[in-house]
Amino acid sequence: MPETRKADLVFVYVTTGSKEEALRIGRILVEERLAACANVLDGMTSVYRWNGAVEQAEEAVLIAKTRSSLFDRLTDRVRELHSYDTPCVVELTLARGNPDYLDWLRAETG
Amino acid sequence: MPETRKADLVFVYVTTGSKEEALRIGRILVEERLAACANVLDGMTSVYRWNGAVEQAEEAVLIAKTRSSLFDRLTDRVRELHSYDTPCVVELTLARGNPDYLDWLRAETG
Amino acid sequence: MPETRKADLVFVYVTTGSKEEALRIGRILVEERLAACANVLDGMTSVYRWNGAVEQAEEAVLIAKTRSSLFDRLTDRVRELHSYDTPCVVELTLARGNPDYLDWLRAETG
Repeated sequence: MPETRKADLVFVYVTTGSKEEALRIGRILVEERLAACANVLDGMTSVYRWNGAVEQAEEAVLIAKTRSSLFDRLTDRVRELHSYDTPCVVELTLARGNPDYLDWLRAETG
Repeated sequence: MPETRKADLVFVYVTTGSKEEALRIGRILVEERLAACANVLDGMTSVYRWNGAVEQAEEAVLIAKTRSSLFDRLTDRVRELHSYDTPCVVELTLARGNPDYLDWLRAETG
Repeated sequence: MPETRKADLVFVYVTTGSKEEALRIGRILVEERLAACANVLDGMTSVYRWNGAVEQAEEAVLIAKTRSSLFDRLTDRVRELHSYDTPCVVELTLARGNPDYLDWLRAETG
């Protein structure tokens, strides 16, 4: 019986200044086996406070699917590649998944 | 006082080959009470390694909102309905929520 | 060495009837320091059961980034501002993050 409960795999949610930047970073993460897959969502609008004023900007979302053990290395790499000084890079733990998909995700990372 | 802390409800994140496929699967999951609601996000670009090369494809995201106890049945159903051999089906635990919304979610599943 | 493991910060996932509604609510949450940042994703299609029939509607997603300790106040505020009687407001815990980004997130909330 396949084991579906695993806590070693994560989504890493990153925001970027454009779809092109998200695709560029996502491709490098996959090439370097820091992620098995990247999902890029275009058409995101960000609202945030900056120097006391509320600003709005067009951005994109990059979701990198990887092992939790690679999180620190992935974060360092995103910081090197990213156009922002302080990019949003946060980890969401995956509670479970399709066993075959989780196996693929592990095989394609690290 | 309503209880807001609950760990029995989850998001199930699925990727599909098109918005149409996401809507078709989402509708069946809701009809069969395997999910209370499905959110379909179009315009997702996926980057992944396949047979050693980095590939890119246009996809869609389906987020199914359901009880954690239905995860295995929902995963089996998505695998039956999905055009991919190894679809991404992963579970994100909801820590808390609007109590009325969580009640609705429970009432519409299982 | 910066500490990356933190469980006090969260994503709050909200759905709205339009991008405009998501931006309006997101801006107020940021202005009132109930969130440091809001990410609005347009072009979401929702599938759900209503009075026994499966319905479909065009919506938007609002992801508010904040402290877990602000969740109840944020939920109350969204319920006041939202056009729906029972809006989807659910919390996803962040396991870790870019330390500088987490510091910024804390500084801009509460």
